Amino acid sequence: MARFIRFRQAERTAYGRLEGDTVHVLRGGLFDGREESGETLPLSDLTLLAPCQPTKVLCVGFNYRDHAEEFNTPIPEQPNIFMKPLTALTGPETPVYFPKALANQVDYEAELVAVIGKRARHVSEEDALDYVLGYTIGNDVTARDLQDPTKQWTVCKGFDTFAPIGPWIETDIDPKSGLDISCWVNGQRRQHSSTKHLIFDVPFLVSYLSQAMTLEPGDIIFTGTPSGIGPVNPGDGMEIRIQGIGSLFNPVKAE
Amino acid sequence: MARFIRFRQAERTAYGRLEGDTVHVLRGGLFDGREESGETLPLSDLTLLAPCQPTKVLCVGFNYRDHAEEFNTPIPEQPNIFMKPLTALTGPETPVYFPKALANQVDYEAELVAVIGKRARHVSEEDALDYVLGYTIGNDVTARDLQDPTKQWTVCKGFDTFAPIGPWIETDIDPKSGLDISCWVNGQRRQHSSTKHLIFDVPFLVSYLSQAMTLEPGDIIFTGTPSGIGPVNPGDGMEIRIQGIGSLFNPVKAE
Repeated sequence: MARFIRFRQAERTAYGRLEGDTVHVLRGGLFDGREESGETLPLSDLTLLAPCQPTKVLCVGFNYRDHAEEFNTPIPEQPNIFMKPLTALTGPETPVYFPKALANQVDYEAELVAVIGKRARHVSEEDALDYVLGYTIGNDVTARDLQDPTKQWTVCKGFDTFAPIGPWIETDIDPKSGLDISCWVNGQRRQHSSTKHLIFDVPFLVSYLSQAMTLEPGDIIFTGTPSGIGPVNPGDGMEIRIQGIGSLFNPVKAE
Repeated sequence: MARFIRFRQAERTAYGRLEGDTVHVLRGGLFDGREESGETLPLSDLTLLAPCQPTKVLCVGFNYRDHAEEFNTPIPEQPNIFMKPLTALTGPETPVYFPKALANQVDYEAELVAVIGKRARHVSEEDALDYVLGYTIGNDVTARDLQDPTKQWTVCKGFDTFAPIGPWIETDIDPKSGLDISCWVNGQRRQHSSTKHLIFDVPFLVSYLSQAMTLEPGDIIFTGTPSGIGPVNPGDGMEIRIQGIGSLFNPVKAE
């Protein structure tokens, strides 16, 4: 079992393996020939960043049975895949900016995020987990009032800072086993479900996507949100908890 | 007026400025402090690549009046924005692969592509063209039979090789003036329109997108396709011509 972080400390940015509160700094990247440098740091000395640097951010809509029902959307026969731009990525504790233009309602969406560990193309469901390094937490922040008028979701889900991920990548958890997932706004629970209720599970999603496109190391898949979505406003704090990973907190600020 | 290319020659990849058939090699990148090295090469000595390296590929659906009518879609009030993954990009003359899984119908879509020249955020329509380096040609290749079942278009438009662009970036053309745009399959014309029929023009699109997200140098915007879309099969050749830019050719091959 390992927990990987990406961090900034003074002028440098690096990857590390977290053990308790101790960071074992990696010499290079997270994916190719991962190697520890021998240097250790206390977690309190550094700033956590989004734990990987994807070339694409893939997301699944309506992938919890209860959330599809909440939207009066039939249970999909195929996954409903959209993307967020890389400029939407941000890390733990950083602000999510409430847009000053185009949008008037911003919603949280708690999601389990799978992190691709090696290049995948035409991978079977049976082999799919070999291509997953681990899991992190994501908030699929959405300008809800733009979702229907724009039809395709790139803009409503693609504002800068609308894809917080973190705080780290946990390698040895099994979403099929049923991990508790919840979203809290200002300390009040708004969403609560289990990853066992995913309609399309992670092996299916990795296999399905890899039939169409090459998945690169560091690419991420937001696996969808359960019911209970709702709005936030500047001044609110959003916290998403997933059992076995931890907690992702982001304050909402006016842009 | 300038024409910029990206090319491979032997082991190196570089940018260049094309004048007639002579390539003036650039020392570094296309965007920051662009500088010619003094070296020149004949165009015939090199392989053209996709002319830039985006961090995101943004696209507009139903942006020609006639194409929206062909789909029985109302003229949109807001642009319908989707994305293609970076893994879909390819250059001129390279194959577009007909998928061996998931899809059974592949369509061409001729499009004018705007290339962002400098970082843009909250840019006005009046200033928007200052952030556009120029234009290239794109083929928004689409697995048409997947478009309705998947609702969001990331998969149907996101297969590897489904975003050919090129052959170069032309800096001094004005789409508002009405550039002839056409698509030819095996030498037969299938689409024919003018860029003056765009519903949302390039200044609007750049301004609109920049209200939501930071546009980075090299990011591209596929501006939508006119009527006349239709299928291709392995063995077919797709050629898109845009007045003032040139021609983008890609053969279709079985994956």
